[in-house]
Amino acid sequence: KHIYNIAVIPGDGIGKEVMPEGLRVLDAAAGRFGIELRYKHIEWASCDYYAATGRMMPDDWKAQLSGMDAIYFGAAGWPAAVPDHVSLWGSLLKFRREFDQYVNLRPARLFDGVPCPLANRKPGDIDFMIVRENTEGEYSSVGGIMYEGTEREIVMQQSVHSRIGSDRVLRFAFELARQRERKQVTVATKSNGLAVSMPWWDGRAAAMAAQYPDVDWDKQHIDILSARFVLQPQRFDVVVASNLFGDILSDLGPACTGTLGLAPSANLNPERAFPSLFEPVHGSAPDIYGRNVANPIGMIWSGAMMLDFLDTDGGSGRQAHDAILAAIQQVLRDGPRTADLGGTASTTDMGQAIAAAV
Amino acid sequence: KHIYNIAVIPGDGIGKEVMPEGLRVLDAAAGRFGIELRYKHIEWASCDYYAATGRMMPDDWKAQLSGMDAIYFGAAGWPAAVPDHVSLWGSLLKFRREFDQYVNLRPARLFDGVPCPLANRKPGDIDFMIVRENTEGEYSSVGGIMYEGTEREIVMQQSVHSRIGSDRVLRFAFELARQRERKQVTVATKSNGLAVSMPWWDGRAAAMAAQYPDVDWDKQHIDILSARFVLQPQRFDVVVASNLFGDILSDLGPACTGTLGLAPSANLNPERAFPSLFEPVHGSAPDIYGRNVANPIGMIWSGAMMLDFLDTDGGSGRQAHDAILAAIQQVLRDGPRTADLGGTASTTDMGQAIAAAV
Ligand SMILES: CC(C)[C@H](C(=O)O)[C@@H](O)C(=O)O
Ligand SMILES: CC(C)[C@H](C(=O)O)[C@@H](O)C(=O)O
Repeated sequence: KHIYNIAVIPGDGIGKEVMPEGLRVLDAAAGRFGIELRYKHIEWASCDYYAATGRMMPDDWKAQLSGMDAIYFGAAGWPAAVPDHVSLWGSLLKFRREFDQYVNLRPARLFDGVPCPLANRKPGDIDFMIVRENTEGEYSSVGGIMYEGTEREIVMQQSVHSRIGSDRVLRFAFELARQRERKQVTVATKSNGLAVSMPWWDGRAAAMAAQYPDVDWDKQHIDILSARFVLQPQRFDVVVASNLFGDILSDLGPACTGTLGLAPSANLNPERAFPSLFEPVHGSAPDIYGRNVANPIGMIWSGAMMLDFLDTDGGSGRQAHDAILAAIQQVLRDGPRTADLGGTASTTDMGQAIAAAV
Repeated sequence: KHIYNIAVIPGDGIGKEVMPEGLRVLDAAAGRFGIELRYKHIEWASCDYYAATGRMMPDDWKAQLSGMDAIYFGAAGWPAAVPDHVSLWGSLLKFRREFDQYVNLRPARLFDGVPCPLANRKPGDIDFMIVRENTEGEYSSVGGIMYEGTEREIVMQQSVHSRIGSDRVLRFAFELARQRERKQVTVATKSNGLAVSMPWWDGRAAAMAAQYPDVDWDKQHIDILSARFVLQPQRFDVVVASNLFGDILSDLGPACTGTLGLAPSANLNPERAFPSLFEPVHGSAPDIYGRNVANPIGMIWSGAMMLDFLDTDGGSGRQAHDAILAAIQQVLRDGPRTADLGGTASTTDMGQAIAAAV
């Protein structure tokens, strides 16, 4: 029997509303497939905790998370109380970096029953994976201001890409493509505009591709690539991108499948030296918080990805993942719908329906 | 009578095919509205010129363009012969920078008769302007490589934003919004991720907005903003963005209106100290070059923007602009269509039809 220790961090805003539904579905799947999940409930990594203590996490946050197999995370940020770059660099982005979760894996899939914002697309037309570099690149935090407060003021920020950092995420993408039916990788670039970093990145991509002769690949500039997500989403299988480009593509891709409320993500340390983190793509959504109307599917699907990743022998965890995805599909076709899908169901209604379908 | 000197630079690939149609329509409009256009035809700023000489432009390129009121530009780049970052930094990006064309203005508008890739959108639903910073920011070319060729290799590239550079493009956007019916500005940011440069940019935006109490504004992170272009394009009026973010949004916005073949752009030096440059958003498109199938509307619409900008008293140039736009709309509804619009017409067919409609 598989036993996993899971740190449960709801965070802020609708993170607190979708988390119970995520756990409800995890429990249903765990029960059915004989998996034991041991939760450690954590109140910090939230702006509530910040309001009380002046920081996002306690000093011993790493110790408190040691021994955890994974972190199941809701959403961070409450901009009215704490500037986003403070709350996020003090929690989510710290996890990604200090736990070396260098792959951010985000699927975009069009489900049957979800109104698609793109014309004439049917389920099956959109089904790809975005592999985002998650620890370096444009999100360096290195830089500063000169001539501050004067007309001559200049702000500079470095993008920092390492060979180690680029190669490992490119390798992950090519390995992933190799396991998929279409075996195709698209590398996001902008070598015509970002004339220092991106020609170099293209070189790393070409070197990696040479090791995977069985995988088709090409590179596309981020501007036209974004356009093609809308115009030809059926073209994509695995898309690999730097931190910033991956951030943009992994909101845009899911948007093309209907609603960000569905989109899950896995922040992976593939070597399993540190816990990986699973969270919906959406944020804390202050505008809808408190009414129990948020779509919990992003949270629930993230839980499915967690079970799949945790189970290294591809047995019960993979089965639990597939059962949750099937339950999501069933409810999207026939079940209650939250407001983002044009319905009136509550967060709880949807969570219960999906748990029941598992 | 207005007389303008126009440098005509077809550049590469389909730039050479759409340019004659652009000139055809300009001539028709100029004739009708009593404008005299004096063309200077230029072969350089092309990869053909590079093949012959080893560089994109002659040493005296600035002298050759002195006295020009505007540059009418096709497309640059032929990646099979010259790496993009060489061809573009040697031509288009050099113009933008050395002629201080700090505003890149790009409309996104859904026309009647164009199949929209978004479901359930009708003409009028999408009609906004993207104002892109065009000379600095992420496109700094400042940076380099450490530990080259080793496992420890690191590449760094600076983003450089100046107060002067940010304020002037923000001001342009707020001034533009003030002239429009909805008077609304959306500022693209990513202050939660790019924690040095973007919180600063947000501060400049807030300071500028304070000077325009009659303009509604908000800021949106580039990831969710890209998603909203697909999900809620009717929300936008004027969108202002840094160089890279504006690049992405100004392919994505036009993609949401059907085809990049329609999208025009104006690279403006609003002070008119240097010639401004007008070019379609699309590139040289090696994959379709040589078959006379490219859509010339991006080129033609760019010409309309040029006449509008050149005429500082808002008389015949504005009228010529409006007449060209009306002709484009008429042909898109009833006339011949190129392949990108699902038709079989040639580049020339479309150009002739639009010229006749002017
Ligand atoms: C060709 C490239 C350098 C250019 C840019 O990124 O500015 C193009 O994409 C554009 O948008 O005009
Ligand atoms: C909140 C923000 C810092 C974060 C990011 O940009 O990485 C989010 O947009 C995401 O995609 O997980």
